[in-house]
Order: sequence, then C-alpha cells, then structure tokens
Amino acid sequence: MKRSIGPSTCLAPLPAVIVTCGDGSENNAITLAWVGTVNSEPPMLTIAVRYSRYSLPLIERTGEFTVNLVDRALLRATDICGVTSGRDCDKFERAGITRAKGEKVSCPSVAESPVSIECKVRSRVDLGTHAVFFGEVVNVIAAEEYLKNGKLSVPEGRLVAYANGKYVGTGEALGTYGFTAREKRQ
Amino acid sequence: MKRSIGPSTCLAPLPAVIVTCGDGSENNAITLAWVGTVNSEPPMLTIAVRYSRYSLPLIERTGEFTVNLVDRALLRATDICGVTSGRDCDKFERAGITRAKGEKVSCPSVAESPVSIECKVRSRVDLGTHAVFFGEVVNVIAAEEYLKNGKLSVPEGRLVAYANGKYVGTGEALGTYGFTAREKRQ
Repeated sequence: MKRSIGPSTCLAPLPAVIVTCGDGSENNAITLAWVGTVNSEPPMLTIAVRYSRYSLPLIERTGEFTVNLVDRALLRATDICGVTSGRDCDKFERAGITRAKGEKVSCPSVAESPVSIECKVRSRVDLGTHAVFFGEVVNVIAAEEYLKNGKLSVPEGRLVAYANGKYVGTGEALGTYGFTAREKRQ
Repeated sequence: MKRSIGPSTCLAPLPAVIVTCGDGSENNAITLAWVGTVNSEPPMLTIAVRYSRYSLPLIERTGEFTVNLVDRALLRATDICGVTSGRDCDKFERAGITRAKGEKVSCPSVAESPVSIECKVRSRVDLGTHAVFFGEVVNVIAAEEYLKNGKLSVPEGRLVAYANGKYVGTGEALGTYGFTAREKRQ
C-alpha cells in the first residue's frame, strides 16, 4: 500500500561529503549531501549550494572546489561543518580537521578525508534556492587503504550516507554491478 | 598517507534507484546511480542519462520521469534493469516488477518500490557523455511503513546505495543532522 504525500526532496541515500573551497586568503569547509555524479568523459559532478551560504562567493571567485568523502571517523566533523558558518569561525579548527594543500586546485582539501576529489567549475545553473555548480574532476587524492593496484577500491562499511535528516552507515557489499547477468552465463 | 591518482568519477555512496519513464504506448525502467537532489523550493533533482540509452528519447518526448527508491528486496530487479535494455525486452517482466499507474505523471512507477518520486522535466544540460535532466518533484508516493504522521520516515537499514561498482546496504543511523549543536546546548 502506497499513498501520495505531495512533493518534497526525498531522494535517498545521498552521499555525505565535506566540500572545501577558497584559497590561501580565505577558505571554508561546508557539509553537503546535494552532490552527484553527472558525466563520465570528462568526469564531472554537481554540488548544490544554497544562495545564503558563505562558501558560494568563494567558489564563484576561485572557480574551484574539492569534494571530500566522509567516513565514520569524520562524522562529528561533518556535522560541525554542516551547522556552523565560516562567517563566524574557522570551521577547520572548530571541527578538528586539517587543511591539506590542493594538488591541482588552489583550495585546500581535508587531510583526514579518505578521498578528496578536486574540481574546476565548468558551468553554473541557478534554481530557486540553490546554485548548482558543474565541476570537472581534475584530480583525485586517495588514502592508501582506499586503493588497490593504484585504483580506487572503497573498503566496505566505512563511508557515510545521508537519508531523511540522518547520517547513516554503509554496510556490506550486496553484489557487484551486473551480478544477475553473470549468474546466467554460468 | 594520500596520493594523487588522476581524475575519475568516484563520488560515493550514491543512491541506487530505478527510473521509470515513457507512457502507455512505450515505457521503460532504467537503473541509475547518477541522480541527486539540487533544489528545495521547488523540490528538484537531476538524473544523468547516457546518450545511447533507450530511455533518453522517452524522457525527452514525455518530459516526465519517476525516480523509484530501491530497498534490499529490489536488489536483483535493480541489477537486471541496469544490465538489460528496453530495446531487447520488457524490463518490468524480466525483472519481476509491476507497473503502477502514475498519479501526477503519465509514466508508470514501480509498485514494489517503497518511495516513488514523480518528476516533470524543467531543463536539460548536455555534457560529454550524458544528458542531465533537471526534474521538478510534483508528487511523492510512499509505502505506509516509510511514513510517520503522514511524513516520510525512512526505516533504518533498508535502502540500497551504490559505491565503486558495488551495491551496498545502508545500516543504522549514526546521528541526526545537527547532533553536535544539540550536545552543546545541553
């Protein structure tokens, strides 16, 4: 039994990430769940940033941002970067996270994040409450334990998702993409 | 210790969803992970569809699609809708899922999905390999067990995410958004 409840933003589970932006003179870390992959060649993702956010003009000015994936160890820092503003405090200090120098972008990344995705803004779409930045991934910086033969291999049960107002853990792998097709071939 | 591995699409965890599209004359179900929320007023989300996909002209022609969230019971159907094409078979039949009549859109939804998000296309952005459709959410249809006082309340441990080529389970809630701010006030 299902019933209509009217429109709302209820897509889930979403990635919980810390987006870093700005440069040496001014920078910030902002927690977002409204991010998504949108293109494979070149690799691109979007981030949706509310107009009132302190980070928005930083991203606009520099044309760069970094998406830092969040594991369980970063949960408290992630929440702190979500509920405080860079206008009022140094969020890195407040959240107990460390700035790492960007490799292909001028903005810092979060040293403690297992995977930092460096992006350059290619376009922007303005909606009612949010600006959507289309970022091209120019580099990925990953922790050794998230790598296997030089390629990304996310360990099970580490990353954090966001669903319906809550941070939720990811658990065991339930199957690899295409598992039903491989069964038939056997 | 982190190191650069070059650009790739590695944002995770992403939502695993079945997108339904088309109308009475021709319709389809396609598994996507490249979907994301982008705006709150009005509620909007994006879906990124590879140009070669059978569903793309269906979405373009009708200007509508429905995003169906995936729980563990839908895992096999989700994989089947990801690795088969609507050009070759009736994916609903092949995957063992049931068409439900759309309420505010002409396309069917997946009856077995716990939450179906009906959308109307408001704009489209064309990237290198994928077309990104911006959909306004016009209605949400939810299973009773996903509702609490008429509002969406996702039970823990049910929804499926996608990370690095694998379907992964979501687990227990780790905290509610803002938990660090509430601690301080106590």
